[in-house]
Amino acid sequence: MSLAHAEGGVCLPKGFLAAGVASGIKRSGGLDLALIVSEIQAACAGVFTTNLAAAAPVLVSRERTKSGIGRGVVVNSGCANACTGRKGYQHALDMAAVAAKATKAPPNQMLVCSTGLIGSYLPMDKVLLGATKAAAALADDDEKAMKAIMTTDTRPKRTAYSHSSGWSIGGIAKGSGMIAPNMATMLAFITTDACVPAADLQAALGRVTKTTFNAVSVDGDTSTNDTVLAFANGASGATPSAKAFREALRIVCSELAEMIVLDGEGSEKIVRIKVVGATGARQAERAARTVAESLLVKTAIYGGDANWGRVAAALGRSGAVFELSRLTITMCNEKVFANGEPGAPQAIARARAAMKQADIAIVCDLRAGKGAAQMLTTEMTPEYVNLNAEYEV
Amino acid sequence: MSLAHAEGGVCLPKGFLAAGVASGIKRSGGLDLALIVSEIQAACAGVFTTNLAAAAPVLVSRERTKSGIGRGVVVNSGCANACTGRKGYQHALDMAAVAAKATKAPPNQMLVCSTGLIGSYLPMDKVLLGATKAAAALADDDEKAMKAIMTTDTRPKRTAYSHSSGWSIGGIAKGSGMIAPNMATMLAFITTDACVPAADLQAALGRVTKTTFNAVSVDGDTSTNDTVLAFANGASGATPSAKAFREALRIVCSELAEMIVLDGEGSEKIVRIKVVGATGARQAERAARTVAESLLVKTAIYGGDANWGRVAAALGRSGAVFELSRLTITMCNEKVFANGEPGAPQAIARARAAMKQADIAIVCDLRAGKGAAQMLTTEMTPEYVNLNAEYEV
Repeated sequence: MSLAHAEGGVCLPKGFLAAGVASGIKRSGGLDLALIVSEIQAACAGVFTTNLAAAAPVLVSRERTKSGIGRGVVVNSGCANACTGRKGYQHALDMAAVAAKATKAPPNQMLVCSTGLIGSYLPMDKVLLGATKAAAALADDDEKAMKAIMTTDTRPKRTAYSHSSGWSIGGIAKGSGMIAPNMATMLAFITTDACVPAADLQAALGRVTKTTFNAVSVDGDTSTNDTVLAFANGASGATPSAKAFREALRIVCSELAEMIVLDGEGSEKIVRIKVVGATGARQAERAARTVAESLLVKTAIYGGDANWGRVAAALGRSGAVFELSRLTITMCNEKVFANGEPGAPQAIARARAAMKQADIAIVCDLRAGKGAAQMLTTEMTPEYVNLNAEYEV
Repeated sequence: MSLAHAEGGVCLPKGFLAAGVASGIKRSGGLDLALIVSEIQAACAGVFTTNLAAAAPVLVSRERTKSGIGRGVVVNSGCANACTGRKGYQHALDMAAVAAKATKAPPNQMLVCSTGLIGSYLPMDKVLLGATKAAAALADDDEKAMKAIMTTDTRPKRTAYSHSSGWSIGGIAKGSGMIAPNMATMLAFITTDACVPAADLQAALGRVTKTTFNAVSVDGDTSTNDTVLAFANGASGATPSAKAFREALRIVCSELAEMIVLDGEGSEKIVRIKVVGATGARQAERAARTVAESLLVKTAIYGGDANWGRVAAALGRSGAVFELSRLTITMCNEKVFANGEPGAPQAIARARAAMKQADIAIVCDLRAGKGAAQMLTTEMTPEYVNLNAEYEV
């Protein structure tokens, strides 16, 4: 029994169709409206932003996933429909209703997501026509869907796996800037044709997102629209064990999360911050997150500087408990700080040389306990600032 | 009885001398070692970084201020003497000892501060010679001292006030980048010739720093070296009321804090984030801080974009409790978001036009209670990233 990487994304599992169209929301005229639909009823689960300013589509989808039954999701890019009040809420309902009608799905089983500018209203005439057009274009191919959910992404993101016992799992995602703890402007859609009861699907998704989508950070801003949805339609007839399914889900989510970090706005490096020896998992996570979000650490990495002092300073203000005299930091496998003392000059020089790599590992051993955690992040670049200063779709 | 702004800084109060010399720590050959000394015994108080990776000089000065008696402080820039282990701790002790000896101060009454690169050892031969040279140069003039404590600062910072009842208060400060909650790479030295008992001085300083130095943020990184020291030598013979003294101290600290924000690395704007209507002061502070530290808010301000959506998103993830449908945000006095709905297009257009100003006010009314707080910050610029990627002294 084994899991093998396969071509495709959400349409690899049987019984799922997808479409992506240009509805005119994006000024560029690019693809901006996607549909993913199961041909038969499916179990569904969702994990949503914890931001109190959650967008209208989040409110609608969060409510609907509670039933555990879903047929599909309609997604637009270019406008987040966030901070849009009562009118925006009605827009999200209308967008889902038209998509449900066009795909002949039960009205309450159509979920809805948006991503893009906060504070703008959806151009509903375009959205409704687009949803109808997308329904007519549904096919066994997610090529256009994965492009239609992109905003500042430089490339589409998907992955899929087949299990030797006959079921498969696949996913598509979008996200580049604003990627942060608790999933910032990040959308991911996972489909599987395995038989997975809704409660199990929700439990697995909740658990897996913690160490995948929620463990990446580009700039610390948690978005109003973050959503991860999973659909399981059982079309393969196979029923994997909870553990086997969770492991497959973890691999898919982990790969998508890594693609999102690698596509961080303006960035070229992936930085893996690992904290071990914390007094507990939560302390480890807090410490790793503080380092991952430190602007000084991230600008140093951009500058190719093995600046362990900034890492130590970030750990020191993270709230994690440790003694400086026990702290050890390695950067690119070089011990740059050991037991509260600077590392050997040769080690620091080697670390500095290694900082040119595209994949940088920083390991912080607090030697205060057994808690461990890892965060993925990127360097901070002047391009990031320019992109976000001029952000328009 | 009134307080009037006066020329000068730490040397305006009677009995205080200062000096600044070039000791050779900075490669540039610039001023890098300062002394501030009271000619007579003085009460002293200090507020220090809460970073667990506190630098050696912080450990020494924190211990010594506990006695409430201090004669002065020796300060170097160019090297933070942080994360330098046992050797660095000895360096801080030695630096203070030489300064005490050269100024004939009791050894335990000389405090010590450092600012600059983390993780480097102090060049002690230069530091010790410099301290001796500075002691010989002590004079009733802080012009060179205020320059010798600068790192990436673009201008020196000082202010002073005279009280009509005969006492005065003055201060100098350094700080630009890394300025953050709980005082990042920020040094400030306050002197007064009023009679203020050590316990009262400590109480006043602790209280005043909360709403001044601790309420500014440039990039969220709390430094290993932040220190605010106050000395009161009673040389004027005047004893102000606790309230009058605290108010004068607040004005001095507030002006210095504002100068620090205005000197934020690469920035040209001062942004005042005010949160009102929170369920309590702590919630208000948390909300204001999250907005002040949001990269997306700060890049939008750099781009001249009145992006209230990003402000709402930051409030939403801050942990402060409120209902989006009650939230109102004004930017530059324009109501851009009211009761959970976008403001009138004309108001948003006026706010956008007003974002060109150098002084930008953002007021967020959560309408959940009576808690209020304010934070000062700056916009985020590509120059900030470049400066911190290439930081060398």
